[in-house]
Amino acid sequence: MVTMLEVTDISAGVCCAPLVREPLGASDAEILAHKIKALSDPTRLRLLSIVAASEDQEACVCDLTEPVGLSQPTVSHHLKILTEAGYLTRTRRGSWAYFRLQPEALELITQFLSLPART
Amino acid sequence: MVTMLEVTDISAGVCCAPLVREPLGASDAEILAHKIKALSDPTRLRLLSIVAASEDQEACVCDLTEPVGLSQPTVSHHLKILTEAGYLTRTRRGSWAYFRLQPEALELITQFLSLPART
Repeated sequence: MVTMLEVTDISAGVCCAPLVREPLGASDAEILAHKIKALSDPTRLRLLSIVAASEDQEACVCDLTEPVGLSQPTVSHHLKILTEAGYLTRTRRGSWAYFRLQPEALELITQFLSLPART
Repeated sequence: MVTMLEVTDISAGVCCAPLVREPLGASDAEILAHKIKALSDPTRLRLLSIVAASEDQEACVCDLTEPVGLSQPTVSHHLKILTEAGYLTRTRRGSWAYFRLQPEALELITQFLSLPART
């Protein structure tokens, strides 16, 4: 439920104007820093990119351990952080959990960091 | 010199293909996670946005302490992290240090996180 609420917040445009347009307020900065922190780990970036580059931008946890060379509990810990920050959603099918990319969460970050096109 | 080398690396396109195109390699993930970590703090995001929204995307350290409500040593510590990660460059003029946005460093992150336009 927390993830769903966060995704709703993003799509409602709660946060944040591009950084070149106006200084970021303190509360928006807290929200954004929390979301960016979830991306500030090399394993999480690799897991996110594997899911994002998969067919339908979805991958089974069973296919994520081998590429990063880590145990399933460790991979699940990183996937939980990415899910709680809104970058992935988790669905159980049979014995396995599947993770799907949530583009809106990435767009929140890229919109904030975007710069005007240079002439 | 470290900052200059890092900026050169970025403009040379060393890192990284968009995450939806291909899984991120381990060494690129380390580089990118280090750069993203510099953005994963609310004070640093606010300082970066103040510099980015300033005229000529440059600001004096003397104008950065009051908006974030922190001491100059604390602000200087955060500015140093942003500078070392390549987001800002630092120039001394008279008694004060001035910080200027380096758009290439932000573009590295937005290119990696960018998604194809949705139809």
